[in-house]
Amino acid sequence: MNSSKPSTETSGIEYLYNPRSIAIVGASPHQRKPGGRPLVALKARGYKGTFVAVNPRYDEIDGIPCYPSLLEVPEDIELAVLSVPAAQVLKVLQDGVVKGIKAAVIFTAGFSEVDAEGAALQGEITELAQKHGIRLLGPNCLGLMNLTNSVMASFAHIMDLEPITPQTLAFVTQSGAFGAMIYAEATAAGVGFSSFASVGNEADAGFADCMEYLLDDPHAEVIGGYLEGARDGAKLRQVAERALQIGKPILILKVGRTGAGARAANSHTGSLAGDDEVYDAFFRQMGIIRINDLSELTAFVLLHRSGRNFEHTNIAILGGSGGHGVMLSDRCESLGLSVPEITGTTKQRLEEILPAFGSARNPIDLTAQAGRDPRMPFKCLEVLSIAEGIDIIFMQMFYSDERVAKKIIEIQNSTDKPIVVTARRNGGSESEDVGFEMLKEARIPVLFDGLQGAKAVADLSWYQRKVRRAREDAAKTTPAQPRTNPVADKLLQSGKQLTEFDCKQILQAYGIPVTREKLATSADEAVELAADLGFPVVLKVQSGQILHKTEADAIRLNLGSAAEVREAYEEILENAKKYAPDAEIQGLLVQEMLQGGVEVIVGVTRDPVFGPVIMFGLGGIFVEVLKDVSFRVAPLLRRDAEEMIEEIRGHRILQGVRGQPPVSREALIDVILKVSELVSAYKDDIAELDINPLLLFPDGACAVDALITSTSSGPV
Amino acid sequence: MNSSKPSTETSGIEYLYNPRSIAIVGASPHQRKPGGRPLVALKARGYKGTFVAVNPRYDEIDGIPCYPSLLEVPEDIELAVLSVPAAQVLKVLQDGVVKGIKAAVIFTAGFSEVDAEGAALQGEITELAQKHGIRLLGPNCLGLMNLTNSVMASFAHIMDLEPITPQTLAFVTQSGAFGAMIYAEATAAGVGFSSFASVGNEADAGFADCMEYLLDDPHAEVIGGYLEGARDGAKLRQVAERALQIGKPILILKVGRTGAGARAANSHTGSLAGDDEVYDAFFRQMGIIRINDLSELTAFVLLHRSGRNFEHTNIAILGGSGGHGVMLSDRCESLGLSVPEITGTTKQRLEEILPAFGSARNPIDLTAQAGRDPRMPFKCLEVLSIAEGIDIIFMQMFYSDERVAKKIIEIQNSTDKPIVVTARRNGGSESEDVGFEMLKEARIPVLFDGLQGAKAVADLSWYQRKVRRAREDAAKTTPAQPRTNPVADKLLQSGKQLTEFDCKQILQAYGIPVTREKLATSADEAVELAADLGFPVVLKVQSGQILHKTEADAIRLNLGSAAEVREAYEEILENAKKYAPDAEIQGLLVQEMLQGGVEVIVGVTRDPVFGPVIMFGLGGIFVEVLKDVSFRVAPLLRRDAEEMIEEIRGHRILQGVRGQPPVSREALIDVILKVSELVSAYKDDIAELDINPLLLFPDGACAVDALITSTSSGPV
Repeated sequence: MNSSKPSTETSGIEYLYNPRSIAIVGASPHQRKPGGRPLVALKARGYKGTFVAVNPRYDEIDGIPCYPSLLEVPEDIELAVLSVPAAQVLKVLQDGVVKGIKAAVIFTAGFSEVDAEGAALQGEITELAQKHGIRLLGPNCLGLMNLTNSVMASFAHIMDLEPITPQTLAFVTQSGAFGAMIYAEATAAGVGFSSFASVGNEADAGFADCMEYLLDDPHAEVIGGYLEGARDGAKLRQVAERALQIGKPILILKVGRTGAGARAANSHTGSLAGDDEVYDAFFRQMGIIRINDLSELTAFVLLHRSGRNFEHTNIAILGGSGGHGVMLSDRCESLGLSVPEITGTTKQRLEEILPAFGSARNPIDLTAQAGRDPRMPFKCLEVLSIAEGIDIIFMQMFYSDERVAKKIIEIQNSTDKPIVVTARRNGGSESEDVGFEMLKEARIPVLFDGLQGAKAVADLSWYQRKVRRAREDAAKTTPAQPRTNPVADKLLQSGKQLTEFDCKQILQAYGIPVTREKLATSADEAVELAADLGFPVVLKVQSGQILHKTEADAIRLNLGSAAEVREAYEEILENAKKYAPDAEIQGLLVQEMLQGGVEVIVGVTRDPVFGPVIMFGLGGIFVEVLKDVSFRVAPLLRRDAEEMIEEIRGHRILQGVRGQPPVSREALIDVILKVSELVSAYKDDIAELDINPLLLFPDGACAVDALITSTSSGPV
Repeated sequence: MNSSKPSTETSGIEYLYNPRSIAIVGASPHQRKPGGRPLVALKARGYKGTFVAVNPRYDEIDGIPCYPSLLEVPEDIELAVLSVPAAQVLKVLQDGVVKGIKAAVIFTAGFSEVDAEGAALQGEITELAQKHGIRLLGPNCLGLMNLTNSVMASFAHIMDLEPITPQTLAFVTQSGAFGAMIYAEATAAGVGFSSFASVGNEADAGFADCMEYLLDDPHAEVIGGYLEGARDGAKLRQVAERALQIGKPILILKVGRTGAGARAANSHTGSLAGDDEVYDAFFRQMGIIRINDLSELTAFVLLHRSGRNFEHTNIAILGGSGGHGVMLSDRCESLGLSVPEITGTTKQRLEEILPAFGSARNPIDLTAQAGRDPRMPFKCLEVLSIAEGIDIIFMQMFYSDERVAKKIIEIQNSTDKPIVVTARRNGGSESEDVGFEMLKEARIPVLFDGLQGAKAVADLSWYQRKVRRAREDAAKTTPAQPRTNPVADKLLQSGKQLTEFDCKQILQAYGIPVTREKLATSADEAVELAADLGFPVVLKVQSGQILHKTEADAIRLNLGSAAEVREAYEEILENAKKYAPDAEIQGLLVQEMLQGGVEVIVGVTRDPVFGPVIMFGLGGIFVEVLKDVSFRVAPLLRRDAEEMIEEIRGHRILQGVRGQPPVSREALIDVILKVSELVSAYKDDIAELDINPLLLFPDGACAVDALITSTSSGPV
């Protein structure tokens, strides 16, 4: 390893993925038992390091030396694989400490997934391991396979499958059984894995730790994951940010989208599922591609392997059956890809090639003729490969022998455009297999379900644009550091529920514009302040015990004169005392009355996994009826704020509708980023924050009402 | 056929699907040529009727008698299958007329899909056929297969596939190639077809005609279709309505959802694709299940065959792998199905059966134990089969031999609840095949892609509820007949662009409440009318040449006095004359000024395929920014109006938000139904209609502005 990879040198995860020696503790001569499988696989795959068996009942197992305990193994051991009863795990690890092992994979079930006793035992082994710097995978896991160095520290049946080359997909899974299914199906779809890790209970090394290691594993060109719930949101973020910088795609199948799903994911590995909308936002923010289906992953891997640029997405579809082309075209456009009409010289050239009743439109319909004149598709492909306004070519194929493959490869080599082949397995004659093999070696993606290609193109295109933007950002900006502030310090740590007045002071301290306002403690003072501000004004009670001022009828709008202010003052006080007789009243807020503007909401909630999450939405019925809001996990970059704004369905309202002028997008971005700064600095102190409404104007923004609940103030 | 099926007795389509004798014209001894394939297939499948070959070059083909022309065939011939060059088609049909054939299938291409000359030729053959009552399928089609009587009037290679039993799916396709692909894939998925028809250019018999015949075909339990664009919307509607009454499901894969898709569908068969949103609405209205994918069709067929009731959708998922159960559960909930938490005695019973680290929640996680204790899944299944609050059971299976199948069938027979098996083909040992075969015979659906089952359950549940409601409606209501009206007659046939005042008169004639208003032709009259109505009032210019009154600045709101009215009158007249100097001005409308209410839009547009289509949406920015509208094809039933209202995302606003009282849903339904009555009576006269806004109040509705464009008034 070179000096540019400091993190893996110290994390110790490399002893799981790349140990120089392995001991199987609880080894068995029964080849299909968990203790037998790794031995068989290490031998069969030709692991180059040292490996031994440990079991007091045998002297050797199938020619492999077997020792009564780890302590009696003569060689140094870096990785111990434990296939022993739960009650023996601690003892084996204690031996491991003495022996000086660096890591352990624990297959054994019966820990935190069962009951409190199991959880306590898991705590003991974790503590022991962490004290001595031993990295653990599991317990209650299928283990790990590294196909590139034949480390077979698993008992999964998928070790029996013949590995596919090239080995480029590294997979990490929170569900062993489901991960194994994905492995088997992706292998059948022609996708080769570089490694596979089942993390089980994540007592020590978790999902994000494995992913972090894979960032520096040159074999892992694409990282895939099956996630039920992240244990360490901050770590996952750190990994995702670096992955985006180095351009290594992460694709995650995240379950628990809905109520029941989230329940089940909980019961399955005891993981804490965060709100699915937060996950969705987090993935978008971090450039993680969320997949719904295995085929989206396999198609992505094949497309990515082509090494081509998919950022521009004007697609030409060259098809033999009209129907299929139309379906693919529908799918493309519904995903935001464009299937433009073909015009000009490209159209002329195609019409020279296509038979009378074919179609030079897009999708290009080759009709049944394609089966009779085998050169026609290639002639069209050649035309498209140099056509202006076409970025990507989908080519539907009927068969692929050596001759066909050669022709496609020749055209592919003459252009930078990605060519994606969608084919149908016709029963798979040998000459076809040769053709597909040649295409694969030339890194031309061959998809056997054409429609999945559309989603993979959309994903890869989005990803490549995300990477480019992340790199541009990194080159020109440094993210703001969380900065605390004495006003906020004092108020947030007061242990009291803050009033609107308090909250506005905090917002102001962070440069967020708020309404002009002052606190009055008498009717006279209120009248004086109102005159200073200029009529009309708003009057609101300020009390940590009265957060719903409208409900208490302790707010008066549009007060146009001293007399009205005086009258309102008395009414509000009276109503407040009626509503909450014991409320401690800070005073009455005298506030300027703003007219016009577009109402929006900027809010923050604290997610158990990811910490402060910022929400943006249009105010009023948009939020109440349509739930038209977007989220991002703090801290935010400028591009995150921009994306939040673009993501809401009603964002056009900000550009001005029905004759209204557009409001200031810059002012909105600025408020969102300042809120991010504030809540990042006080991520342990702020439980919730709401600016509702924030009024937007053509030349600025203004927080009209605000509420912050601190973690220390207790329930309201 | 019995007397309750008059339509098929006269349509003649039965001679395509069920002829007693067939002649293959242009027959060939080459078995793989279009003229050879039908002979081979008729023989191979054992067609019971008479069949002969026609070709002057042969005396017999493979033992089948061959004649020089149709005229020389000694037997009566009901169906002629034409595989001759385009130039000979007319001559063959002329012979057919003399011979007295009843129907013809024309494989030949080179007609309207090519050019004007081809279209003219197609016109000639169609005219000839229709004159003599001969039904045509094609030209430019793959032909027709009826698997239940071995009519093989096709040259598609799919005739070679071994038919699957039971034969219950009848399929009609506008794309031959794509239809054949669907046939092949559904066959591979274990779904048996009763018939398959490729309609080609639809010169005579079209997509809807074939479907109409299938309504009375007892073999066709489910009707499937691949549609690019309907030629005859009214016929399709008629078919769909009867299908709903008799409870025979229609599933359609409709392409052309988006811009490019619609373009390609056009070029493919020259069909006229209507707006996709209209198709979507039409399908929902008519109980047609729109599918996106072939697997949705095959899963539906298998579920439907169970004969069980899926209307209630509390689902229990019994799974062996946590991950798979969670994914299925996510999918179910995202489709609106419920996967409820399991509680009470059911939970207790399951916990007695499940191992310690299993999970009695829903999805029910059997863990790896299920592989070891083969009785456990059945014990759980038994508990669920009698559990309250569970309507449907998904059961994930690992293997299915005879013993397993017997056990599941036994439980299925003891309950009314549907049991859906999701399985994984493990390579398909013989004992497994026996098990799956037994389940299939017991009508228990076995799905090999578990997730597709969720969509099929949602589809079938929606469909069954739709059928029930349609039958209830049919029992208690008769749809309103279109009724014309003298006021509407006069105005719509005037040949002039109508003013708001004219339009309101038409609306009023149909009982739609409008603002109180009168027409003034002088300032004095306007003042007088305003006083009668009561101040404040609205004043608007009325001219067929000034439809955008705001743009012309020829509208004044909130006029509170005689003086204001007088002044406004002059201003409006002046502005109108400036805006359109030649405009013919009918007068100025003096209208009551309404306060409050919720703004909605009810509109009508004329679709080229389906005729008048009614639109509903919330007014203002909801329509402008969010495009939050719903459609139905006129005429509407009450349930259609109800569904339109429920479909918009913002429908909660009608129920009252932010302290507003709910508005009258009945008044809104009434307006929508009256608009339907109006546009159905004048479907050829009304090009567009817009009531915008229609104001809704707690106790009624009122059309504030309205515009009708008639087809006779020409461009504005």
